[in-house]
Amino acid sequence: MAEPGKEIAARVVVQQCLHAKLQVKPPSHDSEAEWVEIKKGMVIYICFFKGADSAVIPRIVNTLLNVKLSETNDGKHVSVKELPGDVLIVPQATLGGKMKGLCMQYHSNAGKDQAMQLYSQFTTLCQQELEANLKWADSGSRLQFGTYGNRQVLQLDTNGPYTHLMKF
Amino acid sequence: MAEPGKEIAARVVVQQCLHAKLQVKPPSHDSEAEWVEIKKGMVIYICFFKGADSAVIPRIVNTLLNVKLSETNDGKHVSVKELPGDVLIVPQATLGGKMKGLCMQYHSNAGKDQAMQLYSQFTTLCQQELEANLKWADSGSRLQFGTYGNRQVLQLDTNGPYTHLMKF
Repeated sequence: MAEPGKEIAARVVVQQCLHAKLQVKPPSHDSEAEWVEIKKGMVIYICFFKGADSAVIPRIVNTLLNVKLSETNDGKHVSVKELPGDVLIVPQATLGGKMKGLCMQYHSNAGKDQAMQLYSQFTTLCQQELEANLKWADSGSRLQFGTYGNRQVLQLDTNGPYTHLMKF
Repeated sequence: MAEPGKEIAARVVVQQCLHAKLQVKPPSHDSEAEWVEIKKGMVIYICFFKGADSAVIPRIVNTLLNVKLSETNDGKHVSVKELPGDVLIVPQATLGGKMKGLCMQYHSNAGKDQAMQLYSQFTTLCQQELEANLKWADSGSRLQFGTYGNRQVLQLDTNGPYTHLMKF
């Protein structure tokens, strides 16, 4: 989590799902939309702020993949690695919004190039860390992620979203 | 939003949906599960903290029903009242979680009786405010809400969840 008094680098919302489906390429005049989907696991919505640099990525990945938020069939909470469960990452710049009057402003968000780079590092390290875990890798579990900058057309089916907020 | 330095009374996550369905009564040996559902509109996840009292409720309701987070068919952002759109309220105590080691703790959350009372005041005032708006009331839009203390079995279909965080 973020240290007190330190600028926030990223904000994350985590939900649990039984199934989720995310559009990664919108339909065009000559092609249908492309989607990714996951089964039981964790949906991670992530937003990076201006002050963020790559040094924070390992701490975010380590936290999200090891925090005990995933429920086993007998009601115990374990990490998504231990479950083992699928992971869907959704870039979600709106999480950086601050209300000004009745509108939302996003002045603290990382710029597009910086955020795309951090997002790419984040998804890559998640994949590496998950694949390095034999139990997870052998289970056939999957990591999927959305395309930065797209509209995140999302369908979610949960047995309780069990929504958590984290800041780094 | 919460004033700087002041204790947080409530944390809210808002998502936009095309359709959402929430279980309000789990199945039992002699009855099927009961569900509520909404069409295009806003899903509000809410959690109350220990310091919260009823005085904060009108400010939360006023903000959520008037903030311009709902997208019209021509891509303009308006309030859910103006849309006019449906509203689904999901009690979500997990939003008050703080990480301790690899587990989540909820020591700052309002106690069950206090939270139930605040939740009930919140849903009641939302209903009153929405019904007092002729455009919303005449449109056939609906407010639905989950049962406090239940597992919030939720299905969500979005055209982009457009996730926002607010604290009060």
